[in-house]
This record gives sequence, structure tokens and C-alpha cells, in this order.
Amino acid sequence: FPVVTTPTHPKIWSHEERESLVQHPLTKRLLKIMSKKKTNLVFSADLTSSEALLKAVNLVGPYICMVKTHVDIITDWSTDWSASLKSLADQHEFLIFEDRKFCDIGNTVQSQYGGGMYGICEWADVVNSHALPGPGIVEGLKKVALSRERGCLLIAEMSSKGNLLSTSYTKETVELGKRHADFIIGFISLHRLTDDPTFLHFTPGVHLASEGDNMGQQYLTPEEVIKNRKSDLVIVGRGIYQSVDPSATARKYQEAAYKAYEESLKL
Amino acid sequence: FPVVTTPTHPKIWSHEERESLVQHPLTKRLLKIMSKKKTNLVFSADLTSSEALLKAVNLVGPYICMVKTHVDIITDWSTDWSASLKSLADQHEFLIFEDRKFCDIGNTVQSQYGGGMYGICEWADVVNSHALPGPGIVEGLKKVALSRERGCLLIAEMSSKGNLLSTSYTKETVELGKRHADFIIGFISLHRLTDDPTFLHFTPGVHLASEGDNMGQQYLTPEEVIKNRKSDLVIVGRGIYQSVDPSATARKYQEAAYKAYEESLKL
Repeated sequence: FPVVTTPTHPKIWSHEERESLVQHPLTKRLLKIMSKKKTNLVFSADLTSSEALLKAVNLVGPYICMVKTHVDIITDWSTDWSASLKSLADQHEFLIFEDRKFCDIGNTVQSQYGGGMYGICEWADVVNSHALPGPGIVEGLKKVALSRERGCLLIAEMSSKGNLLSTSYTKETVELGKRHADFIIGFISLHRLTDDPTFLHFTPGVHLASEGDNMGQQYLTPEEVIKNRKSDLVIVGRGIYQSVDPSATARKYQEAAYKAYEESLKL
Repeated sequence: FPVVTTPTHPKIWSHEERESLVQHPLTKRLLKIMSKKKTNLVFSADLTSSEALLKAVNLVGPYICMVKTHVDIITDWSTDWSASLKSLADQHEFLIFEDRKFCDIGNTVQSQYGGGMYGICEWADVVNSHALPGPGIVEGLKKVALSRERGCLLIAEMSSKGNLLSTSYTKETVELGKRHADFIIGFISLHRLTDDPTFLHFTPGVHLASEGDNMGQQYLTPEEVIKNRKSDLVIVGRGIYQSVDPSATARKYQEAAYKAYEESLKL
């Protein structure tokens, strides 16, 4: 019989170890970028002007592994925007994550993901989805992604005050994700939810100065998120694009979050 | 002391009684349309071509009190589309309900509702929202609607298989709605959730032949929804637009659902 050693606390895998362990090509690609650029920072580009958005993304590009968009808040959107974003992604090496938060029945999300003006599946490497409507939502989205290198994150926890994602809700979401590991590449959560190295954990609501906004958003620091809560990636928005120097600020977040990751490997 | 009589079962109010009881101007307007046109039918216009959508809406216009749209599945959307839909709404007297199913934090849904290419708040009388992210989502949406005659439905129940809306989730959603009665005009649900005549109940997944699709959608008949489950409005999509004669079929649904309402008044 093989000798099984039980570690005293769950192992924190390095990005390189995980890259060799995971099956999903998109997760592999992301881990490669994270390790090469030494970054676990996702930039949440919540800007409403396409020009301002692309400018900000270009400034922070060297420090991020992924940009998170809300295509439906851009006032002057055009198909050119997607092409420009894609070209910035190629130039700086980062993935594109459209934060659509799908939350409808399978038949509807299929059209929302694959069709419409935005054609999200054409340009977004990653999208996210709530598990609230049941397994049909993942089945619907998966049909659109099909043979393309596309991934989806399930929203297992939220950072907003008074949210209704209970412990059992989170658990069911993680189980749903595990049943669809060919498409679900990880979770939006406030801490690590599974020790399976296949799944990446993305934590939103991150700010170096942990405060909140006046509409129920509650912030966490990069160190708290990565070192204490064992998440993998921090999502930072207003902390960067509302700063005087987004490029320098992005670098500060990249350094803080990556240092927290390196320290967590030594724990 | 006034004499209080306790009815043996909750009272079913007529549309006319409710019109005189409710405060929200949009609910009043909807009830007036329902009573005038003798219809509690909402047409779910899930079509992806703007021309086909407007054509179908024009055909079923006389039989509906509301049209439900998914603006983000329309491939050839333009601002003209909203203007054309608005003009059909004026001509046939029905309200427009964009089935956006908001499900993000307050700060984000504000931009999604008020901004972007679609400018949903400009043309949609009604939108809907999940309560999942907590009270901030309603507060965010409300800020956009402000002094305009706009209403929102909270999704308290879903018809898809294996959905995660628990009994306590539904209860908390109804309570959230009651705290924002100046904006929340009712609920998306599978049956009546409150006897407060202020709130209208809208039930999706309705089909004269109660079957399902192959992605977890489960259907109910208009009679079951209105008479047994005491909901107020039926939402019918594929049952109408996939039929050979959408106009005649819409009329069939309008008659069936309205007859069920009239019979429920006599119970």
C-alpha cells in the first residue's frame, strides 16, 4: 500500500505546481501568465467611456493577469472596442473576464452569452455565473462555449452587505462547479472553498485601505485575501482607476498581492 | 371598536379594487390596462431579430398588458428599436418589462440600469432584480429610477429545475420588497407570496400544454397559475411565438388566463 501522509493544514500550491496539475487549457494559460508576470492581480475596469477604459487598461496592463469588464455599462461601445481590448490583452498578456453574472434559465443565458450586440463569447476568455437558477444555467452556457478555450467562474460568495448567499448555497455552488470542471475554472469567493488545485479563487472588493462604499460594498486588503483567506487572485477596481496614478497604484497592488502569495507558500 | 371579520381564506381582490387601493402610479396604470383590456397576459418576446420581435409584439399587442424583453439577445439592436417598441406600447396600451435580472452590487447595477448602450431605464417601465446581493441592489436601482414612473419586480421564485431559491430566501426577498414598496411593485414567483394587494405576482414558465424544455425549464398552465396558485399575471413566451399563428394563440392564452382570474374571484 502507498504511504499516505496527512498534512496538518491544506497545501498551498505554487502557480507552477498547479499549472502542471490542471487539465483546463485556459487555467493553464492563466497560471503561466501569473507565474511569468509575477501577478495575481485582476483589474476591474468599471469605466463607462470606451476610450478611458482602454487607456486605463493599457496603463495597468504590465501588472495584471486579467482584466474584468462590464461591457453593458460602456456608453459608447462598438465592436471596435472588443478588438482593441483583445489587442491590448495580446500585447500585455492578460485574459479578459466579462463580469456578466448570468442569472437566468439555460435557454436564456445561451442567447445572452453567445448572441446579442455584445457577442460576449467571442472576446471574453472568462465569464461568471450565479448558481441560483440551478444546473441548467451551466449547461446552457457550456453549449455556447463548446470547443472554444473558454472558462466560467461560479459566484459562490459576495462581498456586499446583507447578501443572501448562505453557507449551504456556497456549498451547492462549489459542488455544481466540480461537476462541470471542463468549463468551471474557479469561484468568485471571499476565501478558499476547496483544496482541489484545479479551481482558482477570485476575490472582489479588494482595497489597500479597507473601507467600503455607501452602497453596501465592503473592502478587504490583498494580504488578508491571499494570506489569511487563501484565495488566489484579488480583483481591484476603484482602488486603482480612481487613483491619481493608476499605473503606479496597480504596481503597488500587484506587489502587495504577490508578496502575500509568496509568503503564503512558506506558511 | 370596529367589527373585524376574519375571512376563511385570503381575499382575491379584483383588478378594479386593487387599482383604488395601490399607491404606486405604475401599478395603478397596469391594473387599469388589465381591467380595460381584460388581460393578465405578459408576452415574453424572446426573439433575437429586432424586426421579428416588433412584428410579433404588434400581432399579440391587443391581448397583452405587458411585453417582456431581453434586450441583450437582440443581434441587430439599435436605439430605433426602443423607440419602435415604445410606440407599439402606446398604440396597443401595454407596459414594457426588461427582464434584466440584475444580480450585482448597488454601484454596478446603477450603471447597468441607467447607462450603457441600452439605457434600460429610459424605455423600460419595469425591470426585475434578484435579491441575492442584498439590499444594496434595490437601493442602487432606485437611485436611477428616482422620480420617474418606474417599477421593479424582485425574483422570489424561479421555475427552473434544481434552483437554489429556498423558502427562507423567498421570504427574505418578499420582506426586502415590502421595505421598498415605492419601487418594488411585485414579485416573480410561482404562486402568491403575500396577501398585501399592493404587490403583483408574475409567474413565468407558463404553457397551455404543460411540458418542459430540455434545459431544466418546467411549465405550468394558466389555470394552475391563476386559480390554484393565486398569482396575478402569466408570462408566456415560446408557447406564443413558436406557434403557427401567434395572434390567435395569444388570444387563447389571454382568454384562458383571464377566465381563471374571473373564476378565482368567485371562489
